[in-house]
Amino acid sequence: MERKPLLFLSNDDGVEAKGLKELIRCLRSVGDLIVVAPDAHRSGYSASITSDIPLRCEKVDEQEGLVIYKCSGTPVDCVKLGLHVLSPRTPDMVIGGINHGDNSSVNVHYSGTMGVVIEGCLKRIPSVGFSLCDHNPDADFSPALPYVRRITEEVLVRGLPEGTCLNVNFPALSVYKGVKICHQNRGEWVKEFVDSRHPHGGRYYWLTGEYETLEGETEKSDYWALKKGFVAITPTRTDMTDYTVMDEMEHWNLNV
Amino acid sequence: MERKPLLFLSNDDGVEAKGLKELIRCLRSVGDLIVVAPDAHRSGYSASITSDIPLRCEKVDEQEGLVIYKCSGTPVDCVKLGLHVLSPRTPDMVIGGINHGDNSSVNVHYSGTMGVVIEGCLKRIPSVGFSLCDHNPDADFSPALPYVRRITEEVLVRGLPEGTCLNVNFPALSVYKGVKICHQNRGEWVKEFVDSRHPHGGRYYWLTGEYETLEGETEKSDYWALKKGFVAITPTRTDMTDYTVMDEMEHWNLNV
Repeated sequence: MERKPLLFLSNDDGVEAKGLKELIRCLRSVGDLIVVAPDAHRSGYSASITSDIPLRCEKVDEQEGLVIYKCSGTPVDCVKLGLHVLSPRTPDMVIGGINHGDNSSVNVHYSGTMGVVIEGCLKRIPSVGFSLCDHNPDADFSPALPYVRRITEEVLVRGLPEGTCLNVNFPALSVYKGVKICHQNRGEWVKEFVDSRHPHGGRYYWLTGEYETLEGETEKSDYWALKKGFVAITPTRTDMTDYTVMDEMEHWNLNV
Repeated sequence: MERKPLLFLSNDDGVEAKGLKELIRCLRSVGDLIVVAPDAHRSGYSASITSDIPLRCEKVDEQEGLVIYKCSGTPVDCVKLGLHVLSPRTPDMVIGGINHGDNSSVNVHYSGTMGVVIEGCLKRIPSVGFSLCDHNPDADFSPALPYVRRITEEVLVRGLPEGTCLNVNFPALSVYKGVKICHQNRGEWVKEFVDSRHPHGGRYYWLTGEYETLEGETEKSDYWALKKGFVAITPTRTDMTDYTVMDEMEHWNLNV
């Protein structure tokens, strides 16, 4: 009998998040699951790591084909600890999500869920992040689940090139128009702070903001695909080198 | 009289770090400086952001051509707050560092200093991160300073393409062999945990590790340039899209 694939799951909304529970439910029939998730929400933690305090982890559930750990660290800590210490073998995939909120466009840089995925990719394991553009803790993930399963099965069969992972975002809709393979939208966050005065004095600031695209309407950006009701899949590289600029810079005067 | 350039400085080692103080000292004659740095060390914070608690900031020094704030948030929070709230105008450059420790190769993903730089780049400001491969709080930055100044002056004159920033790393040497324009080394961290048992019971884990390159020796990787005693400059893109894989994926079966 062929061994079932082993899928490693984590997220940044924490072990109790609905998005993770739905992901587990959706993928149990696809493979054996090992889940190592933060013990509370770590949204916006990017690829941060913890080196100045020790990490703790604890097994919180174990069933046939499923084991769940919670960990005191960041999403990337969970992946590192999971792969190095907890997993019985190298998983066939690393999967992040399902995130409560949009990780398309420049958000890939801030996302703890994509931190999970980038870490899996750096460890040369095919890695995919799933995010639903709905921050609601009780968001409805059901329209996304058939796509989560299909994309996971397809990656298990085809693999991914080393150094490339997938950032998959679902619009907050009950029906999608299909799937688009996209590039990361060029855009920026503006109006990022609301300030207020503390009753005991002093000013404080809440990070918030509005996202503005800097691109015209094109079917090929994740931002526009989501706007138009498509599932957006953005192939994402961990090698951030700008090879074009490398050549140009050879002519710079950098001698001292 | 021409207005002096305005340089925005931040780091992840905190406002009191020697690397930041040396950076300020080195660049005061190049332009007016606004410094917004974390109030304590935020090493390994990547591009993380704080949205669930409010941010505080405080002016800690003001002199002719120099103002310094400390901020309660992450390195990226410092940049966002600095650019949106504190800076008198859009700075001509965003500069991160000088970091105590190596941010070359895959470390770009974990680095709070490079978080600063990526954020500046996303805000369409020419942005450069400087790091010295020496974690010592009292590291000797003096060999790096002429290069920091030269690279900053060159970027002020030439600019950088939108979406591309520079990740500059200095070897821990007293003399360098020169400058190499590099690509991000392909490699991975291994042996990442040391575990121990708490006196009151339970196991805990320290994140540590050894970096292993997966590339043969080539002058073009930042890892090898540093090994050979060169200053390594890696042009780094904020658009992480893998455009090659985009085309290949058009043939995948992703319908449900």
